[in-house]
Amino acid sequence: MRIVITGGGGFLGRKLARAILERGALTDSEGRRRELRELVLLDIAEAPTFRDARVSALAGDLASDELVERAFARPVDSVFHLAAVVSGEAEQDFDKGWRVNVDATRRWLEACRAQGGRPKFVFTSSVAVFGGELPAVLPDTQQTTPQSSYGAQKAVGELYVNDYTRKGFIDGRALRLPTVSVRPGKPNRAASSFASGILREPLNGVDAVCPVPAETRMWLVSPRHAVHNLIVGHEAPGSAFGATRNVNVPGISVTVREMVDALRRVAGDAVADRITYALDPAIDAIVRTWPRDFEATLGRRLGMTSDLSFDEAIRQYVDDELGAR
Amino acid sequence: MRIVITGGGGFLGRKLARAILERGALTDSEGRRRELRELVLLDIAEAPTFRDARVSALAGDLASDELVERAFARPVDSVFHLAAVVSGEAEQDFDKGWRVNVDATRRWLEACRAQGGRPKFVFTSSVAVFGGELPAVLPDTQQTTPQSSYGAQKAVGELYVNDYTRKGFIDGRALRLPTVSVRPGKPNRAASSFASGILREPLNGVDAVCPVPAETRMWLVSPRHAVHNLIVGHEAPGSAFGATRNVNVPGISVTVREMVDALRRVAGDAVADRITYALDPAIDAIVRTWPRDFEATLGRRLGMTSDLSFDEAIRQYVDDELGAR
Repeated sequence: MRIVITGGGGFLGRKLARAILERGALTDSEGRRRELRELVLLDIAEAPTFRDARVSALAGDLASDELVERAFARPVDSVFHLAAVVSGEAEQDFDKGWRVNVDATRRWLEACRAQGGRPKFVFTSSVAVFGGELPAVLPDTQQTTPQSSYGAQKAVGELYVNDYTRKGFIDGRALRLPTVSVRPGKPNRAASSFASGILREPLNGVDAVCPVPAETRMWLVSPRHAVHNLIVGHEAPGSAFGATRNVNVPGISVTVREMVDALRRVAGDAVADRITYALDPAIDAIVRTWPRDFEATLGRRLGMTSDLSFDEAIRQYVDDELGAR
Repeated sequence: MRIVITGGGGFLGRKLARAILERGALTDSEGRRRELRELVLLDIAEAPTFRDARVSALAGDLASDELVERAFARPVDSVFHLAAVVSGEAEQDFDKGWRVNVDATRRWLEACRAQGGRPKFVFTSSVAVFGGELPAVLPDTQQTTPQSSYGAQKAVGELYVNDYTRKGFIDGRALRLPTVSVRPGKPNRAASSFASGILREPLNGVDAVCPVPAETRMWLVSPRHAVHNLIVGHEAPGSAFGATRNVNVPGISVTVREMVDALRRVAGDAVADRITYALDPAIDAIVRTWPRDFEATLGRRLGMTSDLSFDEAIRQYVDDELGAR
């Protein structure tokens, strides 16, 4: 089996790659369990290859013909399409967001179609496809009403993935990931960046500023469960879906205050006291349009999982990212 | 005020043009009532101009730079974007459907953005954005789950119209029209073509074959109410909408059997007996995925209307299209 991860150099791409390598085999669109032969990590910059002979890196522009041709130089069985312009940047640079998040996604879908063989295509969508006046808990049938360009672009991507699937060009799945927290690494231009930053920076001995009110409720998933759910979403047979390949991925619904309380329990007062609040209206305006809780019925039926508490998510970060200290 | 109707040579475009000419003024995105100065009817072939000095025709490819430039040669205050590849053709020619229904729509939205002044943009969407397992009566919050490429393309168009509106590039409205019946003229490649043909052909003394079972329930609107609702959708102030500019346009929910019964009441047995049934699996497969009834709460609140009975829709066809005989 030959698998391509776009955004394979990012934190989620790397963790997904590691999980796939450990697993050693995945299920193709014909339902056959197939041994992993080659894992291609594609990103703007060269991605680390884990000193594993099965892994290769491809660097370049996601939408360039040359890069797509190299990715499809040998048959592709599965694509995990994680690469995207994040929410804050897509809001600031309207044209770039649509070009990368939609046009490049189409370019990849077209490459799958041109290849044939109905490759699996896991598209990482987002809870940002929802917004505006929402019920407290969103059912699976909730309409998409994005209130950001990023959310609109993800909703468009979902429609492409579904129609290419319906036409038999791919075996697609559009997985609406909750905000991933605690995310390692540096802050990025996602409006949700703070949802990891306010925990990660204090745990690393650095002060953090929370740009939204403590009452802000969010729908979160830890990296381990996010990776697990991406693989579950890939493995599920096409027959497990109904009229849509869109899945609201399970998460937990917590307020910023509850996140800080969890940090206090896990890491103590000195760490939690490093957080101060200073409203950033631009970030708050985006985040307050996001949904806060989901039924996630289909996702759970497929076998997707979520953290039992946010304490667990913080401990996971300490174990996985700070273990060496 | 300068208004452009794409698909202005089609039956709905012509009826809309006539209604706008009679009205003589519409409301712009600043809420000002403005006298109609110029109405541009754009279509592949030259559209009739009603011997009215305010009307001009533009013929050509919807997405060509040259045609778009001519349409925007003087400031455009409103676009009614009716032109589309219809459902049956979009299903048969995947690339043409996406190119015309999505890429050309984007081209027009970009032209509005480049012009500035936030022109109104009325996008005719369709109930085909819904499909699969649906509730008996769809609420306004129902998710889009298109089961045809046409429906997927319309759902994508809606997302563009909403995001361009949110960014202030246009003042958009995406109106999900029911199947229009009784539609004059000739059969076309829309899967819904029969919903007019089984009434129109018998009324014109021609036998008709119904390609779907008599129990098939549909969501219909007559041309007069469709035109009225397009104008109501244009006139509504932006503040009348919530988190979405998508509107489920009111209609009536009737079965094919009820349509034939209405024809029998209005035109007699000899006419109604011209209908025979012969299942066309391709058409049936598309139509059976369509929704059958809607709450249409927002649409009615905006002032949109629907036929009181299907008898009314048949009488309207007789009055408007057969009046001369």
